[in-house]
Amino acid sequence: MAESPIQFGILGCADIARKVSRAITLAPNATLYAVGSRSLEKATRFAAANGFPPSAKIYGSYEAVLDDPDVDAVYVPLPTSLHLKWAVLAAEKKKHVLLEKPVALNVAELDQILEACESNGVQFMDGTMWMHHPRTAKMKEFLSDPQRFGQLKSVQSCFTFLAASDFHENNIRVKPDLDALGVLGDTGWYCIRAILFVADYELPKSVRALPGPVLNKTGVLKSCGASLIWEDGKVATFTCSFEANLTMSLTAVGTKGTLQVQDFVIPFKEDRAAFSAGIESWFNELVTGWRTMPSEHVVTTDLPQEALMVREFSGLVADIKRNGSKPEQKWPTLSRKTQLVLDAVKASIERGLEPVEV
Amino acid sequence: MAESPIQFGILGCADIARKVSRAITLAPNATLYAVGSRSLEKATRFAAANGFPPSAKIYGSYEAVLDDPDVDAVYVPLPTSLHLKWAVLAAEKKKHVLLEKPVALNVAELDQILEACESNGVQFMDGTMWMHHPRTAKMKEFLSDPQRFGQLKSVQSCFTFLAASDFHENNIRVKPDLDALGVLGDTGWYCIRAILFVADYELPKSVRALPGPVLNKTGVLKSCGASLIWEDGKVATFTCSFEANLTMSLTAVGTKGTLQVQDFVIPFKEDRAAFSAGIESWFNELVTGWRTMPSEHVVTTDLPQEALMVREFSGLVADIKRNGSKPEQKWPTLSRKTQLVLDAVKASIERGLEPVEV
Repeated sequence: MAESPIQFGILGCADIARKVSRAITLAPNATLYAVGSRSLEKATRFAAANGFPPSAKIYGSYEAVLDDPDVDAVYVPLPTSLHLKWAVLAAEKKKHVLLEKPVALNVAELDQILEACESNGVQFMDGTMWMHHPRTAKMKEFLSDPQRFGQLKSVQSCFTFLAASDFHENNIRVKPDLDALGVLGDTGWYCIRAILFVADYELPKSVRALPGPVLNKTGVLKSCGASLIWEDGKVATFTCSFEANLTMSLTAVGTKGTLQVQDFVIPFKEDRAAFSAGIESWFNELVTGWRTMPSEHVVTTDLPQEALMVREFSGLVADIKRNGSKPEQKWPTLSRKTQLVLDAVKASIERGLEPVEV
Repeated sequence: MAESPIQFGILGCADIARKVSRAITLAPNATLYAVGSRSLEKATRFAAANGFPPSAKIYGSYEAVLDDPDVDAVYVPLPTSLHLKWAVLAAEKKKHVLLEKPVALNVAELDQILEACESNGVQFMDGTMWMHHPRTAKMKEFLSDPQRFGQLKSVQSCFTFLAASDFHENNIRVKPDLDALGVLGDTGWYCIRAILFVADYELPKSVRALPGPVLNKTGVLKSCGASLIWEDGKVATFTCSFEANLTMSLTAVGTKGTLQVQDFVIPFKEDRAAFSAGIESWFNELVTGWRTMPSEHVVTTDLPQEALMVREFSGLVADIKRNGSKPEQKWPTLSRKTQLVLDAVKASIERGLEPVEV
């Protein structure tokens, strides 16, 4: 007998919640159960437009979602400044928490959220979807292979997009009271996570912001970057911006191999994603070309990465719910490391580009 | 009647001179005329192995090449520490100078070389071959197009290769008395040139070395990197190393477009080279994929880029020789700008990663 799916409640009707609603529908072990908004009308419209079943509960507040005993888990795509309050409250109501990134305004806030999840025995996971694409596992295989990739030496990452002018005026991601981390918490989050992923989640020793961070009129970051260095001397740099054409590139260079990806956060296509792997690359005899060139690896997927995220999360929730398992610590640990580096970059910017220990 | 080709003399028998000898043979307006080495036997072997015609002059010294009145131009692939002496002497002997990179140990030395070339009316060009590939012109078209690329915002470049252990022991590129700039003058030269190329040769305002430069036992750089910032706020970073798998990537992001290249210095294949151009890239409606993806542009070439370099140089030389034209200032100007940035990176490393004005 098939087990009943994990029942999701969604807090708010953010744009990104449309994508995740579809993902919940696509995931075989999850179902759209409730949505809450401060406006009942908005919640009703959202449910109708996003494939909620007729039986779904439509609430005029976030609290009501948390008070519904049949909600197993909540997806929280609220502005970052509201994460602390609502993620903690959700955990206290024994709801498992799928929290949009950036997870918190700083690691102190995140620690309160994680403490609430831990003490209430609920699973925590952040919304970094690309972690769940099978390409990511294939890239990890390559990066972990001493014969093909060797020892990591450097990483470069870039995630930018050109925000429309109304974004700069109105989007929550550039409002100091809503998403005070600006671009660093948005595209920068992904660059930092990608760098940590490549470094097998070893934290850097220190971080220094690159010159030229750009703030909007209210002091929120629109463009910035940083260099990171580890104990063993490997180095990473990243650039993130709301002011340049959509670009999401990742280059990781080891002693023996090179990984390159052009769409690491959101693959060009839903059903497949590629990466380039160079292995012991070298020139031809007269150095007029390459004898060994990078090769393209394509990884297909039956479900889009956001549905795989929901499936992974729901599987962990089901295991806790039905088997009394402990929450998986991997996911909160990755969120916390990402936030630690992000905080250090922010501190470096605030301290005039001084190096900051992580 | 076809004009007689420009007659080249080569100073020394460096490995790279094999590639350039072939390029001189391939270029329709150039011919291999002489080679000089401190060892006549070595020069004889070199000429025999590299397609020199039977009539070619084989000399047992560099001076003898410069004293041959029928040598129009010299190609100088000597260690960097010898460039000042031999490039100046060549210019004084009225030989046009094709000088391998890095052109000098610092800009003061380069200025002496350029002054000698200018006062003797000879053409100067450095050996940055990729400048002459037709792909480079196509990339420039894209980068210069306000509709397709817009305003440049950031550049990331990486050129690394894994040197064999005997390279670290014996290669001139890691000897303090021969190539004191180490990797910065070698692969770093190309990263800096690429960044300047993308920035339309506008010099950055300041430069700061990245953390973690690696020196060998004799104090020569094996790995390093830097961030560069311009008056208008655009930012670049690069990483160069002798200690990581062969990688040569360039990513330039403008407000409207993105340029990406994986083989910018030496194309994978001799007869064609590609770049990726993203233009007003954006997501599909639900942000589960890209609506507008980067496209691949392939540029074919009849001659390899090093032969195009020789052809370009020889054409300028012929114009001076036959028409009394002035030397083309573009090439020494580009060399000098590259050297200025390189010097600033070196100074930043020597000053504990402080920012250095360019």
